Amino acid sequence: MCGIFAYLNYCVPRTRKEIFETLVKGLRRLEYRGYDSAGIAVDGDKKTTTEDNSKIVLIKKKGKVKALDEELYKKDCMDLEVELDTHFGIAHTRWATHGEPSALNSHPQRSDKNNAFVVIHNGIITNYKELKKYLNSKGYEFESETDTEVIPKLIKYVYDNREKEDLSFSTLVERVIQQLEGAFALVFKSHYFPGEAVATRRGSPLLIGVRSKYELSAEHIPIQYNSAPYYSVLRDCAVTPVSTERQGAAEPIGLFKEGIEQDKNSHNRPDKPDNSTAVNSVGDGKAVEYYFASDASAIIEHTNKVIYLEDDDIAAVVGGKLSLHRLNSLAGENPVRAIQTLQMELQEIMKGNFEAFMQKEIFEQPESVFNTMRGRICFHTNKVILGGLKDHLKEIKRCRRLIVIGCGTSFHAAVATRQILEELTELPVMVELASDFLDRNTPVFRDDVCFYISQSGETADTLMALRYCKDRGALTVGVTNTVGSSISRDTDCGVHINAGPEIGVASTKAYTSQFVALIMFGLMMSEDRISLQPRRLEIINGLRILPDMIKKVLTLDNKIKSIADELYQQKSLLVMGRGFNYATCLEGALKIKEITYMHSEGILAGELKHGPLALIDKHMPVIMIIMKDACYTKCQNALQQVTARSGRPIILCCQDDQEMSKNAYKTIELPHTVDCLQGILSVIPLQLLSFHLAVLRGYDVDCPRNLAKSVTVE
Amino acid sequence: MCGIFAYLNYCVPRTRKEIFETLVKGLRRLEYRGYDSAGIAVDGDKKTTTEDNSKIVLIKKKGKVKALDEELYKKDCMDLEVELDTHFGIAHTRWATHGEPSALNSHPQRSDKNNAFVVIHNGIITNYKELKKYLNSKGYEFESETDTEVIPKLIKYVYDNREKEDLSFSTLVERVIQQLEGAFALVFKSHYFPGEAVATRRGSPLLIGVRSKYELSAEHIPIQYNSAPYYSVLRDCAVTPVSTERQGAAEPIGLFKEGIEQDKNSHNRPDKPDNSTAVNSVGDGKAVEYYFASDASAIIEHTNKVIYLEDDDIAAVVGGKLSLHRLNSLAGENPVRAIQTLQMELQEIMKGNFEAFMQKEIFEQPESVFNTMRGRICFHTNKVILGGLKDHLKEIKRCRRLIVIGCGTSFHAAVATRQILEELTELPVMVELASDFLDRNTPVFRDDVCFYISQSGETADTLMALRYCKDRGALTVGVTNTVGSSISRDTDCGVHINAGPEIGVASTKAYTSQFVALIMFGLMMSEDRISLQPRRLEIINGLRILPDMIKKVLTLDNKIKSIADELYQQKSLLVMGRGFNYATCLEGALKIKEITYMHSEGILAGELKHGPLALIDKHMPVIMIIMKDACYTKCQNALQQVTARSGRPIILCCQDDQEMSKNAYKTIELPHTVDCLQGILSVIPLQLLSFHLAVLRGYDVDCPRNLAKSVTVE
Repeated sequence: MCGIFAYLNYCVPRTRKEIFETLVKGLRRLEYRGYDSAGIAVDGDKKTTTEDNSKIVLIKKKGKVKALDEELYKKDCMDLEVELDTHFGIAHTRWATHGEPSALNSHPQRSDKNNAFVVIHNGIITNYKELKKYLNSKGYEFESETDTEVIPKLIKYVYDNREKEDLSFSTLVERVIQQLEGAFALVFKSHYFPGEAVATRRGSPLLIGVRSKYELSAEHIPIQYNSAPYYSVLRDCAVTPVSTERQGAAEPIGLFKEGIEQDKNSHNRPDKPDNSTAVNSVGDGKAVEYYFASDASAIIEHTNKVIYLEDDDIAAVVGGKLSLHRLNSLAGENPVRAIQTLQMELQEIMKGNFEAFMQKEIFEQPESVFNTMRGRICFHTNKVILGGLKDHLKEIKRCRRLIVIGCGTSFHAAVATRQILEELTELPVMVELASDFLDRNTPVFRDDVCFYISQSGETADTLMALRYCKDRGALTVGVTNTVGSSISRDTDCGVHINAGPEIGVASTKAYTSQFVALIMFGLMMSEDRISLQPRRLEIINGLRILPDMIKKVLTLDNKIKSIADELYQQKSLLVMGRGFNYATCLEGALKIKEITYMHSEGILAGELKHGPLALIDKHMPVIMIIMKDACYTKCQNALQQVTARSGRPIILCCQDDQEMSKNAYKTIELPHTVDCLQGILSVIPLQLLSFHLAVLRGYDVDCPRNLAKSVTVE
Repeated sequence: MCGIFAYLNYCVPRTRKEIFETLVKGLRRLEYRGYDSAGIAVDGDKKTTTEDNSKIVLIKKKGKVKALDEELYKKDCMDLEVELDTHFGIAHTRWATHGEPSALNSHPQRSDKNNAFVVIHNGIITNYKELKKYLNSKGYEFESETDTEVIPKLIKYVYDNREKEDLSFSTLVERVIQQLEGAFALVFKSHYFPGEAVATRRGSPLLIGVRSKYELSAEHIPIQYNSAPYYSVLRDCAVTPVSTERQGAAEPIGLFKEGIEQDKNSHNRPDKPDNSTAVNSVGDGKAVEYYFASDASAIIEHTNKVIYLEDDDIAAVVGGKLSLHRLNSLAGENPVRAIQTLQMELQEIMKGNFEAFMQKEIFEQPESVFNTMRGRICFHTNKVILGGLKDHLKEIKRCRRLIVIGCGTSFHAAVATRQILEELTELPVMVELASDFLDRNTPVFRDDVCFYISQSGETADTLMALRYCKDRGALTVGVTNTVGSSISRDTDCGVHINAGPEIGVASTKAYTSQFVALIMFGLMMSEDRISLQPRRLEIINGLRILPDMIKKVLTLDNKIKSIADELYQQKSLLVMGRGFNYATCLEGALKIKEITYMHSEGILAGELKHGPLALIDKHMPVIMIIMKDACYTKCQNALQQVTARSGRPIILCCQDDQEMSKNAYKTIELPHTVDCLQGILSVIPLQLLSFHLAVLRGYDVDCPRNLAKSVTVE
């Protein structure tokens, strides 16, 4: 997850300083989407360069947007006061997935040293290695470790090999995205096409804001279909662009009603009213500003007129006119894109209708879990490839023991997947709290493989445990959400969970993504085992529909809110389960502890009779997780013990489990999935419950007292 | 721990039925000391046997005393109504330490098929194997698996080899106990000495009650010293009794004032007043009854006049006269034994001044921990031998991994010793909750060694985990408090913790004894490692003084009571620590949960910042365990975080730790010991705290709601 922002002013004079300010403000709004580095690309300065003034300048900086902002004004070679009548600038704030945070790995990424094409990207290109290899073979040199860099190189390659064709900027982009696999939102800028912009998306969000003093001529923009056959760079390894391409057949359509000025002053700088009455000619040349962004938060302060792009839409601005293109018309496809009017407040947009980032992140889970799997599981061939591990797989398979180390929620992800890892790897799996692991001076050997789970990749105890094990010669594997973090740098290999930045201190989507990442590891380890194939297939099928399952669970929000209404004045809460759902109890109880300050505790249902049962009476709130898996009968026994002691359990169970509805005080019914994935679904109601409890108790959900997001001290 | 009871009526006619009733009633009072089997020995019946009527009859039965009681009346060959003027009967209720519960292993144990000598024993004879071997070589055949059986065989051997000497019964016993190592309270009966009794003790408790209608002539009984040189069976392997023995030099002294009848009716059967005015001659022949018992609870209903034997005292009753003997006078030794008058009520005695068995068991820990070590650690040579493991030690040393499995408190004993086992064995140690271990179908291999910890030896989940691992070929080791239990039978080898029966549902002394047993295992495993010798020595020295340390901790009871006064109305309680004291937090929190129904939770201090810190404010009671060990600085950090959030921690710390007193709301100062043993001391204040909290909250400490002592269902 990264933040994309771009700004095009057409016949609206802006000083370079104003352009910088607009770009930086846009990034600031998107900073929650990533903040490890940032960069912009703007047109260069005639004064200060001997070259063509369309020469593009890149300014990139590691760190938060603030660092970039300071950097911009250090470039004293640039004239900040010069007014640019028409200009296109692009900006990006990054959350690393490939390549550590650094200026070099920041976006915009460029096609060559001359910055002929520059691009900003949000998402993951899963086939970037193949593309890179091909482009390398054609003499294109790469400078960054990013997946993104293949995109500007590829468009340059298509441009360089266009032969006699007079290809438009949008056609170049169209050919590029035909080569891309994975997820992306992209905005392109090129010195071959000054003042032009092209944007496209697949999987990642992108919208365009339009601001003009002219009234819009329509509420929709029609799609123009190019109907070009599939253009391939790699498939035939041939460079011949397909000649039947009909680029130019459809003309961009003017956005504005002809000659009608919507708002005389709308183009003026707020501080400097401009009374010029310039009227542009029909269809083109009308003064207009375009804003491209990952979400509306960066646009709403400029305009409330927006167009949301859909997958594989290509938007192009040429001569101030916006047009939308698609390669082929699909049956049933909407042939237009609505120009929508945003009614939301900025704050609302920031959290996307959510009261808190934590809530937003809970609801992002269908997407974040999908991103974790993207490009790694092929649901056709049932192959799982974790790129960061595949070179070490043989070594890992030879190990005597897996040790999975983490703190807090990350530890719970280890607990959650321990059993399935034991099953799929047939190795002993130890799960360890990093601090305890260190306190104990745990024996570690050369034939151990140690996993380090940490969202931030900077958790101090986990990092120290990593160093401890490295000293003892174990193979180390990182599982983090932060490329370039200490743990991802210091481990021998690893998996990035790609959940996108997590703002809420109480971790939610990182947990489910860690869970999925560890499961994928198990699947990869068992690929060669015939006897495990039915089990693998079952799990892979479960993963395929997991995002939809999560969406179903999220629809229970209102029901869970009503349960929170009943519970929020309680002081204590017990969460019980066993087997695959034990970790859910620990994690659910931790969420409640963290943000509601209620004393909640996760209890292994199998230990009930060895002590905790004494706590049960009709006053103690009890949540039980009883799914239809191998522990179902044992859990029913626990339930009977609880009800026999007048306990009034709220049961998380499978849909239509009559037996449970009969015995429960309340039930929360979840869709049934493969046993080892059920914990991903069962934790979500507890995440939601903790959120509602905290709100009802009047606490700040995103900043619980006494806690920090990333614990970088021991 | 077993229960000993014996009854001698001298010139006080009792029917055999009355004698049976007295013996059974005595055993019932002692049943809390053990209840896996019981037995009695009485004189046989002239009518029904062709032999001498002094021929002794043994009746033994597996199970509780009730089972024995029923058995007695099935022997219809015995005339129950016959009146015996003088008779000595002995009885025993057993808590197995060597040999499973069975009639054969029950006491009384006998010298031969003719029951020439029979003996009841409480304690453990640690050199029984050597003695058995020697006696075997002399043709004495053993029938039981007990350690006890060597005693009747040995006295028979001394008797058989007495040559011309006219040895008294007490001299025979004196010679026997010179050969014994370990702990014992013993009562002997012999058909060679009809109507005579000899009792002795070392380490195990024994007292004698006296009931007579005659007034006692003194408040003390003088000790008679025999000054015989050391008599050895084994040392020279010679049979010659030492000839300088001066037996008979000191005469038994009459107990009663001459001719003065204390209470005319005191000898009458309560239901059948006997107005005979028989007066016995001076010094002997006076009607009297003696009661020998492990504790006063079995005596108080008969008489309140008692004599407590001290170590190596030998008490003999000959012709109704009681005399006390010792081999040698030691400097400073009290040359008399007081005849005390018990002021206590029966109920009080049962629990020995304690309000509940749990409290009693907490205070028994100096003794129970010592019993766990008895005969296993030689503090002179620093050798540790766990008899039940030594034949498997080589195999255990070859293993790849130790897995320690338990439930509840037993699991905590595994957590508590994990680190030191890892250190001393240099093997990976996994600790597992039995139910979770089973739920997970954990991979177990032939080169694993699996430990099963269970006080009762019958815990269902632990037992199932045992069977699961046996199927997979692992070597299994039991650690139980119950000889003959399913776990001790089904494991390949094991350790009996010898803590004595535990009545309180909340386990206390079993925990500390399990702890010590596992440490001893570690010591045994590291015996051959030169680099570990300093560490071993440190631990062995720590163990040597451990019982005294525990006594010191127990003196904090009043202080802990006052803390309980402050806390008992709270609903929640957190117990925090790390490293060697993490298990103490889990165990302390469990105790509080079990019997006070307060929601207490043990928290790893290292995890504080990953969630639980949110719970801390000035209202949440927090107990922290901060000892001067490797985690001291890290614990101080945690303390600062707690105090920075207005927490008011009660700190368990080392004596005179100024730093802690400064920051704590209250401190509980404990003696400092070796880091890996500190957990034995630090858990005791929490045991006491839970007890006081439960009492203050008005709950039944020994029978917490919803819980049972031994969980024999899944």
